[in-house]
Amino acid sequence: MKSETVILLRDLSQDGILRLTLNDVGRRNALSEAMLTELGAAFAEAGNDSAVRVIVLAANGPAFCAGHDLKEMTAGRAAPDGGRVYFTKIMAQCSGVMQGIVNCPKPVIAEVTGIATAAGCQLVASCDLAVAAETAKFSTPGVHIGLFCSTPMVALSRNAANKHAMEMLLTGDITSAARAAEIGVVNYAVSEEALTGAVTEMAQKIASKSSMTLATGKRAFYSQREMPLAEAYDYASQIMVDNMLAHDAKEGIGAFFEKRSPKWQDR
Amino acid sequence: MKSETVILLRDLSQDGILRLTLNDVGRRNALSEAMLTELGAAFAEAGNDSAVRVIVLAANGPAFCAGHDLKEMTAGRAAPDGGRVYFTKIMAQCSGVMQGIVNCPKPVIAEVTGIATAAGCQLVASCDLAVAAETAKFSTPGVHIGLFCSTPMVALSRNAANKHAMEMLLTGDITSAARAAEIGVVNYAVSEEALTGAVTEMAQKIASKSSMTLATGKRAFYSQREMPLAEAYDYASQIMVDNMLAHDAKEGIGAFFEKRSPKWQDR
Amino acid sequence: MKSETVILLRDLSQDGILRLTLNDVGRRNALSEAMLTELGAAFAEAGNDSAVRVIVLAANGPAFCAGHDLKEMTAGRAAPDGGRVYFTKIMAQCSGVMQGIVNCPKPVIAEVTGIATAAGCQLVASCDLAVAAETAKFSTPGVHIGLFCSTPMVALSRNAANKHAMEMLLTGDITSAARAAEIGVVNYAVSEEALTGAVTEMAQKIASKSSMTLATGKRAFYSQREMPLAEAYDYASQIMVDNMLAHDAKEGIGAFFEKRSPKWQDR
Repeated sequence: MKSETVILLRDLSQDGILRLTLNDVGRRNALSEAMLTELGAAFAEAGNDSAVRVIVLAANGPAFCAGHDLKEMTAGRAAPDGGRVYFTKIMAQCSGVMQGIVNCPKPVIAEVTGIATAAGCQLVASCDLAVAAETAKFSTPGVHIGLFCSTPMVALSRNAANKHAMEMLLTGDITSAARAAEIGVVNYAVSEEALTGAVTEMAQKIASKSSMTLATGKRAFYSQREMPLAEAYDYASQIMVDNMLAHDAKEGIGAFFEKRSPKWQDR
Repeated sequence: MKSETVILLRDLSQDGILRLTLNDVGRRNALSEAMLTELGAAFAEAGNDSAVRVIVLAANGPAFCAGHDLKEMTAGRAAPDGGRVYFTKIMAQCSGVMQGIVNCPKPVIAEVTGIATAAGCQLVASCDLAVAAETAKFSTPGVHIGLFCSTPMVALSRNAANKHAMEMLLTGDITSAARAAEIGVVNYAVSEEALTGAVTEMAQKIASKSSMTLATGKRAFYSQREMPLAEAYDYASQIMVDNMLAHDAKEGIGAFFEKRSPKWQDR
Repeated sequence: MKSETVILLRDLSQDGILRLTLNDVGRRNALSEAMLTELGAAFAEAGNDSAVRVIVLAANGPAFCAGHDLKEMTAGRAAPDGGRVYFTKIMAQCSGVMQGIVNCPKPVIAEVTGIATAAGCQLVASCDLAVAAETAKFSTPGVHIGLFCSTPMVALSRNAANKHAMEMLLTGDITSAARAAEIGVVNYAVSEEALTGAVTEMAQKIASKSSMTLATGKRAFYSQREMPLAEAYDYASQIMVDNMLAHDAKEGIGAFFEKRSPKWQDR
């Protein structure tokens, strides 16, 4: 299979950075069934692969990701039920991919070029971190076509404040990378030229940490976020105790006192 | 009844923009019993009126809204119970109006001129979107008079970060429109001259969308925001499926492919 | 006991501002068992002391607070259980101190100089308000030593947006005071020279309010924040009614109408 026909490129660096690149340029990297299947598998496999320390999600072409594949969705209407079963399946698959990013034990960084729309914007919002080119754009334009971006807003509203999220959702307007950084959809925006360098530096920094520690912390972050304060503290305190007793904390703290680099066992 | 004696002006444009203008200028648009009754009725009626596509909440006079009517509240103390039953009634009515905005199926945009204080600030925070004149001001000054802005903070703390909300609540200080935009209380601030134009443009944009889609999305937004992630995705996925099967999504997606304007049935 | 050996200095001004100053400079104000005990007691006592109207938490030396005392923690590993019981005790104690700040009926303002790391950053995030010197710095660097800042993130993630919090947690990078203000970890940053003056002014302003009103509002703030909207409104409405019936609201509203200063009974 030539790379032109591969809709999701995978490249794992020696330092453990898995670069996933959306490559269905002709379809503006739409989240077709094929792409969702590829993405879901890639995150699941990366989560279980000890060689992968951090994941970068990038895209080729002028669109980062155009969201659902509307042609494929529309074709689904031909079924006797008007598409209900098919749409239900696609939505479950897509929501599964998004939650697969959140639940993936490896940190995921979106490297955003071009425009990220609808479920494409949700994809960025679902990543743990995101850096955008200053030329990147974001929108949740479902209102233009009568289909509110209801699943994208689950991720969007967990990153941006209510009025900022609602502005994108109710107007369908395009948000600049600078504004996306202001409202919390991405961490920051850099020049197009500097983007891959900035993301790679961030990824290398994270890849140098203990994978056990990162996985522990990432899981705990999203779990405690949904708890009341007292429960969150009880939960996180237990996480800290277990983390203290793990090899990599002993090693890390020892290395700190001995002023040397730690050697992670990643467990 | 002359307009000078009407405390809430209503004006519905041909394109479906209902403009509600607080007009009790002499009382700084306080949320008196009469005003709360008017506002509650206006949002309830607008929610059921298919001619209304979007609501703008504006105000006449130097104060956008001064919050509760303290004279009326104080008069309530004369009752044998010191006012408990009366205050309970007023608070329930006011909280009902605020939630009536959140639960109204039509998007609501605050167009803020002058100062919005206490429950007046809550009114702005309760709207889906808000645009302020650069000269507008915001405060939750209850601490000055021994009465913490406890109900205003319900809306405020769902828009601004904890420390930003607490700064307003604990100091009672006045917040500028620019700062209100930074912390998420309003979407943005524009010059006084540009305000009505900016809000009208935003309202027209939203009014051009399917009312069914807007109602679906607005309801889903606030509902899913209170759910854990997995539950929110299950819920929003079902909303998307139902939305896909509704007329206006078929029409909207069809129009998109045919490069024409959609004709909404609004259902 | 000379002040050099006092690890937590306490100073109560005539206007009711209790200034707590971390003073274990040689250990970078680490949250040793001794410091946690001192801090926990100080907040508990201040909460019950009617002479205390507002609390400022400051620090001497180049570090605001370095987080847990890693030497003490490491010594705990010598126990037969590898430290599990000891770590559990320390984490419970530390989480208790942090929640003691949140639950303290007096408003707490952090006055941040130097670097606040790990549980030191959590300490700042746990305060109701925080003002930082422009030279102050913040980080959650646990990942560097294999020990994710899981308890600090409970406080951090209740102040900063997800991606901003995750950036600090996953990279361990240092955040400037200006950035900390942007993302909500502190209210704002001022020059080193202006810091104590700015915090004192803020503290005096708050100290001039009714302690009853502040305690009512602070408790209600954090309580309602964890409730769904309708429940939050029911709860806050009841708080408002009780507050209206308390002496200080009667006095405060009366003073407002009579254009005089209120005389609080603080109940």
